[in-house]
Amino acid sequence: MSRRILIVDDLATNRIILKVKLNAACHETIQASDGTSALKMARDEQPKLILLDLMLPDISGIEVCRRLRADPLTQHIPIVIITASADREKRLLALQAGADEFLVKPLNEVILLARIRSLLRTHELESELRMRSETWAEMELAERETVFTLPGRIGLIAAKPQTAIGWRQSLSPHLLDRITILSPTEALSDQADASEQDIYLIDADLGAYGSGLRLVADLRSRKQSRHSALALVLPEVEPNAAALALDMGATDLLPCPLEGQETALRISLHIQRKRRADQLRRAVHHGLKLAVTDPLTGLYNRRYGMSHLDRVAASSARSGRRFAVMLLDLDRFKTVNDVHGHAAGDAVLETVAARLRSSLHPKDMVARIGGEEFLVVLPETTMGAARQVAERLCRSVAGHPVRLDELSLEVSVTMSVGLALGPCLTDGPRDTSAETRQILARADAALLAAKSDGRNQVTIASAA
Amino acid sequence: MSRRILIVDDLATNRIILKVKLNAACHETIQASDGTSALKMARDEQPKLILLDLMLPDISGIEVCRRLRADPLTQHIPIVIITASADREKRLLALQAGADEFLVKPLNEVILLARIRSLLRTHELESELRMRSETWAEMELAERETVFTLPGRIGLIAAKPQTAIGWRQSLSPHLLDRITILSPTEALSDQADASEQDIYLIDADLGAYGSGLRLVADLRSRKQSRHSALALVLPEVEPNAAALALDMGATDLLPCPLEGQETALRISLHIQRKRRADQLRRAVHHGLKLAVTDPLTGLYNRRYGMSHLDRVAASSARSGRRFAVMLLDLDRFKTVNDVHGHAAGDAVLETVAARLRSSLHPKDMVARIGGEEFLVVLPETTMGAARQVAERLCRSVAGHPVRLDELSLEVSVTMSVGLALGPCLTDGPRDTSAETRQILARADAALLAAKSDGRNQVTIASAA
Repeated sequence: MSRRILIVDDLATNRIILKVKLNAACHETIQASDGTSALKMARDEQPKLILLDLMLPDISGIEVCRRLRADPLTQHIPIVIITASADREKRLLALQAGADEFLVKPLNEVILLARIRSLLRTHELESELRMRSETWAEMELAERETVFTLPGRIGLIAAKPQTAIGWRQSLSPHLLDRITILSPTEALSDQADASEQDIYLIDADLGAYGSGLRLVADLRSRKQSRHSALALVLPEVEPNAAALALDMGATDLLPCPLEGQETALRISLHIQRKRRADQLRRAVHHGLKLAVTDPLTGLYNRRYGMSHLDRVAASSARSGRRFAVMLLDLDRFKTVNDVHGHAAGDAVLETVAARLRSSLHPKDMVARIGGEEFLVVLPETTMGAARQVAERLCRSVAGHPVRLDELSLEVSVTMSVGLALGPCLTDGPRDTSAETRQILARADAALLAAKSDGRNQVTIASAA
Repeated sequence: MSRRILIVDDLATNRIILKVKLNAACHETIQASDGTSALKMARDEQPKLILLDLMLPDISGIEVCRRLRADPLTQHIPIVIITASADREKRLLALQAGADEFLVKPLNEVILLARIRSLLRTHELESELRMRSETWAEMELAERETVFTLPGRIGLIAAKPQTAIGWRQSLSPHLLDRITILSPTEALSDQADASEQDIYLIDADLGAYGSGLRLVADLRSRKQSRHSALALVLPEVEPNAAALALDMGATDLLPCPLEGQETALRISLHIQRKRRADQLRRAVHHGLKLAVTDPLTGLYNRRYGMSHLDRVAASSARSGRRFAVMLLDLDRFKTVNDVHGHAAGDAVLETVAARLRSSLHPKDMVARIGGEEFLVVLPETTMGAARQVAERLCRSVAGHPVRLDELSLEVSVTMSVGLALGPCLTDGPRDTSAETRQILARADAALLAAKSDGRNQVTIASAA
């Protein structure tokens, strides 16, 4: 993304006026005088925001807006429509075409710049999320579409109940979303997760509670509402007050009395945007989970297992409590693959993984660190307790055969376990990474001994 | 994390006064009357913030603060020290012990609540990041420590140059960080990445530019400064103005003239906090990268390769442009492992991966999808162009032997390639996931043909 703002207007004078205003506010600009070159510049230059006049010589501004939103390369760029007429139909069309804001000439500079700041702030946050999670978001397209069809949650907060009831009456014919009337206290309640809203409509004057702006600041500092859209409902939009509200974190300003259809449209757009950001946040979370997971069994992978062991060793160095390391290996697993095929082998690994996991406490960790090899780490334990766990794991695998329903087959498998206890008690300073290598080597030697002793058993490492 | 605020004060009256103020602002509270129970409650209840009196009957507030910071379970909880004396020594001690803020009784309610909002906002953001990236942050502990020892970058922005020079004189004896004097325009410049600062000290009155608050709003909307600490320097701290500044995104308020030692200490804390958040963001990014990367070769992994192919197929379904899929397999690779050992085999795979990557354009994708098997996807291409690329890849591998310096060895390897072009042109609606499976099967059949035809060659799939 470039850091420039694209000005689209067919009149050179208008472009120059905007350029001067924006340069004074330290924004760099580029310019286009018709729709075709605007679309090309938006793709090639990736501006951070577009100021778009509705009257263009070739394509209408509405159509430019629609095409920008349809192109994956430009769909995320904020668009502010600038026009000479405040015509309600045009405004609705522009919002439906995907415009973020609609300003009428002559432009009030304070409002223009505050809107730009507000859009850029939201947009930077979103693009940071997107940069991290694009892959995941795409991988989970299906989930995204489900989420978007769920109705949104709208909270209405006004000083007088009848005000909020009036808002609900003007909005509900145009929206399928769930509308709830809340007091400021209910909106801020720490118990309010269940009623977390996608968007809050907030009266500018909340009577005894104070100003609506104060509630904006309060909601932005609460866990349940920090990512929500916050729209302030104002009797009249005085430029400095409006700029202040946007700078304090209000997402939008709605003129009072509410115009049902347009407000509903704006609300829908804010809900969509909030849902998309939520989805990106979930995608980041999911991506991180994948990075530490073995795809076949869902256990932790080798990378995570080893780093977890390092941390347990370091924590034991601080606490002085002992910890246990087990290396587990399925016996003669190659035969399963050779005789029954890889699909059967994979099914066996999945079942064994599930049995291991369900035989361990949440504080214990099991990772698949090789084809048929697993690592188990028990923090803060004793030799006696660890040995019992190891034997329980052995039994959980050998106890009953693995049923492969698809192949109408039962396969019996057993497992050998090498168990070692850390730390290797020494005086003087400790080197946990050397200790980690050493304890793994001892567990591995014990595992080999278990194998050569006849398999399906636990062997304990000799002292270091 | 619970959503309550812990009040620590030995006098019941003080606790009640605070409790009433906080409840009125919709915060739930819990209370402790001495240091020992405060420490226990902080661990057990995980409050979202702690208000801590310095005079306690058992342990001093400073010591409580230090212990909270030393305990991994409580080190992230924001702490506001509340005390009857404005003693400078105590204030320095409290900041050194890890307090986030220091307020003097009688408390101004507006300031208290604004500070709480500001700390909670920052803290919620950090804990969200931390929840996602804890594992990665721990895995990269070493990197973290390096980062923390680098000097910070401090930008000073004042209306008059001599003001900023005065600030620098009072700060520089106490700081090793790099101090730069900037104009508002320089701070906002879109070219300013190189000079991105960890913290900006901003004059409350910036003369021709306007108020310092306006610059706070501007910096929060710019990519290069949105995560920086922003400290406003005020001649006097009027409560409502102070609350407004914090709510607009200022990180701290510094009284003017600057008190060198205390300001330096505060600046260091803000730099540390900003660095920690940066590190968490990097850790998230790194974690996501790991999730799509093959650890040995650094190429994309199978999971990413397959999902990328799906996306290219879907995009081709929209655009109507063709795309190419290649399956590549090293010839007789098992021999390399058997003769020279696994370390040699791994080194060969790394070299081959580097050669493949450097023979492809950035828009093309190469993934390692099996032991010695690779997937290449070329979007928007033709059979002629794709065939040339495939032959170039073959030559890049077979052209000269792989040198294994550690083993003083050269190994010659060759590669077979199966190439198929998508989409399989059909009329009617398209099912891209079925197409993806089909084109992979065709490329695989072509790969087998290349192998049985004598290896080290490209074979093109017959039409579907």
